[in-house]
Amino acid sequence: MKFRVQVAVLLKKSVLDPQGAAVERALKSHGYEGIKAVRVGKLIELEVEDESRCEVKTKVTAWADQLLANPVLETFDVIVEPQL
Amino acid sequence: MKFRVQVAVLLKKSVLDPQGAAVERALKSHGYEGIKAVRVGKLIELEVEDESRCEVKTKVTAWADQLLANPVLETFDVIVEPQL
Repeated sequence: MKFRVQVAVLLKKSVLDPQGAAVERALKSHGYEGIKAVRVGKLIELEVEDESRCEVKTKVTAWADQLLANPVLETFDVIVEPQL
Repeated sequence: MKFRVQVAVLLKKSVLDPQGAAVERALKSHGYEGIKAVRVGKLIELEVEDESRCEVKTKVTAWADQLLANPVLETFDVIVEPQL
């Protein structure tokens, strides 16, 4: 079965995010009010073929931990959906 | 009311994504099989204070179109959730 997987990688809340701060300043300088806590991260989307959703989640979480995210500075979320 | 908003920006399917191809090669060289169509994009997370979810969605979609994504090369999705 095919699954569509998204891995969202963001800097930890305790780590300074200069890119997020720059985006926040840019939005505010365009007159967009009422925003705060802007963080910029990476989104990795992939197609995985495997037996079950659970299996895919376990595998991709291991890959993310080893290769896609830096666990010292970043946190990640893995979202698995069946491919339509 | 406070909302937590995620803007996911990915290159259009028709645009070559060398970063995605590099991640795919890296995963495969580590022995991870059964993956394809890896794409790497940006994830922008922000907190917005406004009256309704619908209002926030409209505003952030406009910001994304003007500032956060390049509509020539990229597509984006806006996800709005109430802040707990």
